Amino acid sequence: MRQSATAFAPASVANVAVGFDVLGHSFQAIGDRVTARRIPERTVRIASITGTSTDLPKDPEHNTAGMGVLSMLQDLKLDFGIELSIEKGIPLGSGLGGSAASAVAAVVAANALLADPVSKIELLKFAMKGEQVASGSVHVDNIAPSLFGGLVLTVGIDNPNVKQIPVPATVRCVLVHPHMMLSTREARQILNRSIDLSNVIWQSANLAGFLTGCFTGDLQLIRESLEDVVIEPQRKLLIPGFQAVKDGAMSNRALGCSISGAGPTVFAWCEEQDAPRIRDAMVAGFTAHGLQSDAWISTLDRVGAQIVD
Amino acid sequence: MRQSATAFAPASVANVAVGFDVLGHSFQAIGDRVTARRIPERTVRIASITGTSTDLPKDPEHNTAGMGVLSMLQDLKLDFGIELSIEKGIPLGSGLGGSAASAVAAVVAANALLADPVSKIELLKFAMKGEQVASGSVHVDNIAPSLFGGLVLTVGIDNPNVKQIPVPATVRCVLVHPHMMLSTREARQILNRSIDLSNVIWQSANLAGFLTGCFTGDLQLIRESLEDVVIEPQRKLLIPGFQAVKDGAMSNRALGCSISGAGPTVFAWCEEQDAPRIRDAMVAGFTAHGLQSDAWISTLDRVGAQIVD
Repeated sequence: MRQSATAFAPASVANVAVGFDVLGHSFQAIGDRVTARRIPERTVRIASITGTSTDLPKDPEHNTAGMGVLSMLQDLKLDFGIELSIEKGIPLGSGLGGSAASAVAAVVAANALLADPVSKIELLKFAMKGEQVASGSVHVDNIAPSLFGGLVLTVGIDNPNVKQIPVPATVRCVLVHPHMMLSTREARQILNRSIDLSNVIWQSANLAGFLTGCFTGDLQLIRESLEDVVIEPQRKLLIPGFQAVKDGAMSNRALGCSISGAGPTVFAWCEEQDAPRIRDAMVAGFTAHGLQSDAWISTLDRVGAQIVD
Repeated sequence: MRQSATAFAPASVANVAVGFDVLGHSFQAIGDRVTARRIPERTVRIASITGTSTDLPKDPEHNTAGMGVLSMLQDLKLDFGIELSIEKGIPLGSGLGGSAASAVAAVVAANALLADPVSKIELLKFAMKGEQVASGSVHVDNIAPSLFGGLVLTVGIDNPNVKQIPVPATVRCVLVHPHMMLSTREARQILNRSIDLSNVIWQSANLAGFLTGCFTGDLQLIRESLEDVVIEPQRKLLIPGFQAVKDGAMSNRALGCSISGAGPTVFAWCEEQDAPRIRDAMVAGFTAHGLQSDAWISTLDRVGAQIVD
């Protein structure tokens, strides 16, 4: 029986411009790392939190990783306990699914300690219990891509149905994270509760075109469709320099550019050869508005959370 | 050089529950038939209108078939004229894309008379000019499926992008047309101009799930997703007995059941073996509300308009 296991769970881009609350994709270049160690007491405790943010709650019931594993311990009636060491690689409040990644890495690591490991779809439910601690409500559009990898559609909450969507192999994602914080709660609160029918139709066309472009490998259709006409116009006001960043991406042949999750990180999809130039233009857009930023480029391969040690 | 050609264009189900104004599918079991004959005068004239509705305008500029071919004659600078004989197979005001089918059949028949026939995407634009006469605005969600066949996504108006979506081979469509008329204009006017964000998200999940189910052949996902939570709740009030018809379909294992286009025809998707039972239950639903109806079952093959004579 394994005494200890370390899992890596990637960051994730929720919404992907056209699929508010239903689409998300993993971003392998950064992520959180959690080590789970078997302990005799039937409890969950958090030994350490290191990395990009260290002032997170250590009480398991108020920590996404802790709560995910706690619900696992209770549901599966485990006869041992688990101690977690969390190494954050994803900046807090960046819109990159950091709380989801910690929960996912924790349940994947804990699962490796079981005599009978459970399926990924079971792990999804435990990680959702963890994520709930951070967001106050149940969202799965960061959890599912971080766990399964690649571009993921998740429909249904009680019995989430997860489907991986193919992405053309030459597509890359550029992420630029400006050094500012934005709370998901605030980013949700500013949203209008009703949407014009004409924009609903436009966004539906974009969602349908985007998915069809992905399934058929039609980059031109992805380019015409990867545009958020509903949420981005409202949220971009919270991100200084957003328009300059987006213009920088689009004028360098990006397939699309929008806000990652609730922001402030901005993502762009593009073809491989354009990625470095797009990254530089996006960073310059934030710089022009007085914001330092970090930037990464990643493939959109179907690589989700996995045991690394 | 061919002197005469007859084309058949199938009926079509617009919206398909989850894709308001962007999705539609052909329905091969019924359709309109148009014969185009070369005449020396550079003009378009309508020789006859027969079939399910005969009191349509014979002035080409006020007839969808006539206007479609007239725009073709002008745009392509043809040096001859065309006489049309229209045989309507689709009931007027049924929500089955009758005006679109006439326009499509007309331009397909006329195209067969040309020394250099144009592509289907060119014909789409001419048929749109025709359809505009009937609906007062530009819609392509009946035109495109009638012309191309099968389940079709159309995005963009000025340069419509048409994509055929695969449908699992065992799926059938049941159509039940109650003997009442509903004008598209009225059915559009009753719609709320704004939609609750929560319903927008729900409908997005359904659209994304439906398309993903079609692309991956996942009937269960289609069943969970083929539900209109935005338009149907408003329009069903215009169709007496709608709920009984839908309940009849769903309790007999339909994959989904909603309003075809602007109604009053109701469609259901189902597996082949369930189709006759579902058809009978839907017809009984209308009968219980004092409405006679016609019903048909069709595959969803990619067979669009074609020359038949």
